[in-house]
Amino acid sequence: MLTPFKENGDVDYDAFVRNIERWNEAGLSGYLVLGSNSETPYLTEEEKLTLIELTVQEAANERTVLAGTGLESTRATIGLTNKAAKRGVAAALVLTPSFYTGQMTDEVLIRHFTTVADQADIPILIYNVPKFTHYNISPNAVKILSRHPGIIGMKDSAGDIAQLEAFKRVVPDTFNLLVGSASVLHPALNLGIRAGILALANCAPEACVTIQELHDTGKHQEAWELQAKMIPVNKAITETFGIAGLKHACSLLGYEGGHVRSPLVPMNDERKTELREILSIAGLNIGR
Amino acid sequence: MLTPFKENGDVDYDAFVRNIERWNEAGLSGYLVLGSNSETPYLTEEEKLTLIELTVQEAANERTVLAGTGLESTRATIGLTNKAAKRGVAAALVLTPSFYTGQMTDEVLIRHFTTVADQADIPILIYNVPKFTHYNISPNAVKILSRHPGIIGMKDSAGDIAQLEAFKRVVPDTFNLLVGSASVLHPALNLGIRAGILALANCAPEACVTIQELHDTGKHQEAWELQAKMIPVNKAITETFGIAGLKHACSLLGYEGGHVRSPLVPMNDERKTELREILSIAGLNIGR
Amino acid sequence: MLTPFKENGDVDYDAFVRNIERWNEAGLSGYLVLGSNSETPYLTEEEKLTLIELTVQEAANERTVLAGTGLESTRATIGLTNKAAKRGVAAALVLTPSFYTGQMTDEVLIRHFTTVADQADIPILIYNVPKFTHYNISPNAVKILSRHPGIIGMKDSAGDIAQLEAFKRVVPDTFNLLVGSASVLHPALNLGIRAGILALANCAPEACVTIQELHDTGKHQEAWELQAKMIPVNKAITETFGIAGLKHACSLLGYEGGHVRSPLVPMNDERKTELREILSIAGLNIGR
Amino acid sequence: MLTPFKENGDVDYDAFVRNIERWNEAGLSGYLVLGSNSETPYLTEEEKLTLIELTVQEAANERTVLAGTGLESTRATIGLTNKAAKRGVAAALVLTPSFYTGQMTDEVLIRHFTTVADQADIPILIYNVPKFTHYNISPNAVKILSRHPGIIGMKDSAGDIAQLEAFKRVVPDTFNLLVGSASVLHPALNLGIRAGILALANCAPEACVTIQELHDTGKHQEAWELQAKMIPVNKAITETFGIAGLKHACSLLGYEGGHVRSPLVPMNDERKTELREILSIAGLNIGR
Repeated sequence: MLTPFKENGDVDYDAFVRNIERWNEAGLSGYLVLGSNSETPYLTEEEKLTLIELTVQEAANERTVLAGTGLESTRATIGLTNKAAKRGVAAALVLTPSFYTGQMTDEVLIRHFTTVADQADIPILIYNVPKFTHYNISPNAVKILSRHPGIIGMKDSAGDIAQLEAFKRVVPDTFNLLVGSASVLHPALNLGIRAGILALANCAPEACVTIQELHDTGKHQEAWELQAKMIPVNKAITETFGIAGLKHACSLLGYEGGHVRSPLVPMNDERKTELREILSIAGLNIGR
Repeated sequence: MLTPFKENGDVDYDAFVRNIERWNEAGLSGYLVLGSNSETPYLTEEEKLTLIELTVQEAANERTVLAGTGLESTRATIGLTNKAAKRGVAAALVLTPSFYTGQMTDEVLIRHFTTVADQADIPILIYNVPKFTHYNISPNAVKILSRHPGIIGMKDSAGDIAQLEAFKRVVPDTFNLLVGSASVLHPALNLGIRAGILALANCAPEACVTIQELHDTGKHQEAWELQAKMIPVNKAITETFGIAGLKHACSLLGYEGGHVRSPLVPMNDERKTELREILSIAGLNIGR
Repeated sequence: MLTPFKENGDVDYDAFVRNIERWNEAGLSGYLVLGSNSETPYLTEEEKLTLIELTVQEAANERTVLAGTGLESTRATIGLTNKAAKRGVAAALVLTPSFYTGQMTDEVLIRHFTTVADQADIPILIYNVPKFTHYNISPNAVKILSRHPGIIGMKDSAGDIAQLEAFKRVVPDTFNLLVGSASVLHPALNLGIRAGILALANCAPEACVTIQELHDTGKHQEAWELQAKMIPVNKAITETFGIAGLKHACSLLGYEGGHVRSPLVPMNDERKTELREILSIAGLNIGR
Repeated sequence: MLTPFKENGDVDYDAFVRNIERWNEAGLSGYLVLGSNSETPYLTEEEKLTLIELTVQEAANERTVLAGTGLESTRATIGLTNKAAKRGVAAALVLTPSFYTGQMTDEVLIRHFTTVADQADIPILIYNVPKFTHYNISPNAVKILSRHPGIIGMKDSAGDIAQLEAFKRVVPDTFNLLVGSASVLHPALNLGIRAGILALANCAPEACVTIQELHDTGKHQEAWELQAKMIPVNKAITETFGIAGLKHACSLLGYEGGHVRSPLVPMNDERKTELREILSIAGLNIGR
C-alpha cells in the first residue's frame, strides 16, 4: 500500500482510509502496510504505527494484514515488529538490512533474521528487494532460515523467475514464498508460487486478482494475455516513473495517490501524458 | 551448439558431426553455430568457417541454420557474415559490440547494425546477451533497427520477462523476437514469443521441444511442470558451472561434450557429482 | 568517530567519552559524530542526540564539531540537523538520500540539499559515499549546490582522485571540499584539498595528522612513505573487515573499540590475527 | 599508441609512422603498440603485425617496444605473442581474458598467464583494465604470477591508488608494476611505481614525462600542479569522449589522430568545442 501525502508533506490518513475502503471491494487476500513502495524510509515511527492501526481497523474482515518492519538494526527491527504485533498485524515483512553492504554475508543475515524471529511476537517473512537494498539474499541463507518456525515465508521482488525457482527448491512446502513483482506474477504462479505482494495491486487490484483466478481455473491463454498487458504498466510504476508514477496511476484510476514526500518529486506533465497512455493501452479504466 | 575440443585443444570436428546427427533426431527447428556458448571467442576464422560448413552439410533437411558472426568491428562482422552466407547459412546472429562499453550508445549500435544489414548478403538478427557483453540494448534502438528489412529478428538472452515484453511491444509482428534463456522459455512463449535459441537444447533438446509443444497444444500445467524442472539444469549449465558444465552435462546425457579450450578449465569431481545430481533430479536420462 | 557498544548492544557512552579524551591529545582539527562508520543507521534519535551532546561537551576547545544528520527524507533531515544545531555543532554533514536509487536524479538531489540548507540553522556539507549509498553525486549537481551560502563543503569518500579533482574544478575556492578516504589523503592534499574526515583517524589519528604536516612542510618523500604504510591499514578497517575491523584496530591501538551492534558481527580469531599483522607491518604501536 | 585510420576505415600506416617520428622527440622510455586504446579489437592479425613491425623499425634507438598480444584464448595469445617476438618487441602486454566473466577465477587466470609465459619467446606483463574487461585481477593471483620468471610486470589501469599499493605489497621489488591511468601518475610515482603506460602520452607526452621528472627531482609542488592540470584532460580522452576524443585531442595538439574505426563514431562539433576548451584550460598548446 502506498502512503498518500498532503501537499505540505503530512500523511493524508483520510485518503489512506478511503483507499482501503475501495481496495476492500477488490478480491485481494490482504494488505501490506509499510512495504517498500510506501515511502517507509521517509516515515516517522509514529506515522508508521498510525498507518498500521488504520490498516488493521479498516481492512475487510477476512483480509490478512502484514506490516513491513525491517530496519537496519536488529534491535530496532524487533522493537517495531512487536509494536506492530500489539496493533494486530498477522505477520511482519522484514527487509534484509543492507547499509553496510559489503558486510552482509550469509552468516550475518542468518543471525539477524533468526534473532528477529526468536524475539518477535508474530511470525515474520523475509523481504528481498535487491533494487533498493543492492543486496540479494542467497538460496543457502533462505534454505536455513526457512526451517525456523517463526519465519513463515519470503517476498522476493527480484523479478527473476529462475531465482524464484531456486528459492522454491530449497524451502519446505509450507513456507510462503511470495512473488514481489507483478511483471512475473503469472510465470511465478506457474512455478507453484501461491501469492504475490504487488505494487501494481495499488492501482490495478482487479487485474492482479484476475490473473490469479484465470491461472487457478486453467484459463492460461487469458491469464497470460492479461499478464502481458500489465507488464508495461508495472514497469512504468515501479521502474521508469517510480513512486510518483505509482501514485499518479492510482489517481488516474480512481484511488488516492496523493503527493510524494520530499526528496521525491512529482511527475512533470510530459511524463504524466506518457503514463496515461501506458495505462490506456493496457485497457485500464482511466478517469472513472 | 557447443564446440567439442580434443584434449590437446584442437576442435573435434568428428564429435561435432556426431552431435548434429543425434540432434537431427530431436524435433528442433534449426541450429545456431558459433553462438556465445560455442567458445566462439576462442576460435580462429578457419575453425569457424569449417564449423559453419559442417553444420550446413549435416543439418537435417528442413532445419534452419544460423551462424553467430558478430565481431567487435563493423567491417570484420560484415566480412565474416558474408563468408557464412557463401557457405549457406540462412541468417546471421550478430552480437552487440561491447569492448568500449562506455561508448556503446544507441546511436553507435544503430549505425553498426544498419551498416552490417546493408552490406550483408543474408538477413541478420541482433544478439543481446548482457551477461557476456555487459551491455543491454535499449528498446528504442531495437524499435528503430526492427524496421530495417535486413534485420529480421533478435535473440534476447537477458532472461528478463519484462524486458522481453518491452522489446515485443516495439517491434513489428513479423520481427522474429527469440528468447535466449531456457529458464524463461515457457513464460516467453506465453508472451507470444515464437521460438528460442537455447544452450539447454545442446544437452536436453527434447525437453525444450516438449515445453513448446505442450504450450502450443494448451497443456499449460504440464508445460510449466517441465519448465520448472529445467530451470535448475539451465542455471547449472549457463551460470554455476558455465561451459564446462554444459559440456559435462552433454557427455552425461549421450552427446559429445568434449574438452573446453583454455583459459576455461574442466570441472573437478566435486562439481561433476553436483551437476549429475541436478540432472538426475530433473529427470534427465543420464548414462544411456 | 566510531560508536562503542556494550556487549548487550547499548551505547557505551563512557567509552565514547574516553576516546574523545584521548583524541583530544592528537592534533586533530575536529570531530565528526554520526558519520557513516559510527553505525548511525543503527542508532535511535535519542542515542544520536546524546552522542552529539557528549562530543560538543568533551571536544577540546578549538576543535570543530560536525554531526552527520542526513536521513532519507528531507523533513527528517532538517529536523535532526536543527536538533544538532541546538546542541552546538558547527555544521552538519548530510548524506545523499539513496533508498529509491533509480529516482535520485540531479534535480532531486539539488532540491533536497537546497531545501535542507534553506531551513537548517547551521551550515551543511554534502556527504558522498557511494560504497554505502550506491549513488555517486555528479559534478554538475555539486557545482550548483556549492553556490548556496548554506552549503559550505562536501566530503567525498569515493576514493577516486580524478573525481575529487573534477569536483574541485567546479566549486568556489571557499568551498570546503574534503577527502573521505585515508588511502588517498596525500594525493588529495597534493591536489589542493585542505582537509580530510577519515575513519583511520579513529585508530591512528597521529598518522593522519603527520601526513598532512609532512605535506604542509614540503617533506613529500616522508609524507608518501607514511601514506603508503597507511593504505593497507585503511583498506583493512574500511573494506576487508568493515566496522568490526575498525573497532578491533582501535582496541589494539589503545582506544575503546567496543562491540558492534547487530546485525554486524564481531571478528573471529583468524581475522583478528590477520588485522593485528597488518597494523604491525604498518608500524602502528599495538598494545600500549 | 593510437591507431590512425583513413576515412575509408583502412589503417593509415603513414600517419602512424609520422606519430612515432614526433614521439621520438619526446622523452618517452618506449612504446606500447596494440594497447587498449589502439582499437586493437578492431584490427586484423595482419594489421597488428604490420603495426608491430613499423613500431620496432621507427622507434628511436633506446626505446623499449611492447606489444599488446592478449586474446581471449590461451593458444591464440601464445601465437600472437610469438609472432610479435619474432618482429623484435621486448615484451608482450597480455590482457586478462574476460568474455566468460563468471568463469574467470584466480585459478583460471593463474593457469592462463602461466601457460602463456611458459610458451612465450619473450617476457610478458599482465594487463589489468577493468573498465573494458569488467574483470579485476586479485592481489592473490598477481602475487603468485609475479614469481614466474617469464612474467616481468603488470600494467594496472584501474586508477585506484589503494589497489595499486595492494599489488605493490605482494610483488617482488624487481617486478615492473606500471600505472595505466595518467590521472594517478603522480600518486603512483609517490608510492614507488617506476613507470606508466598512458593514453595521455599520445597527445601530451611532454606533460607525462615532465610529471615524472619533477617527481624524480623532488619538485613535488610543480609535479602535482601539472598532475592536477592533466586530470581533466585524461578524463576527457579516456572516459567522457573515449577514443574519438583521444584522437581529436591528438589532432589538435599536432599529432595524427585520424579517424576511428566503426562501430566507433567521430565526435560532433559540440563535443569538439568542449574538448578544445578542456585542452586549452590545461595549458596544452593547441594548433601548433
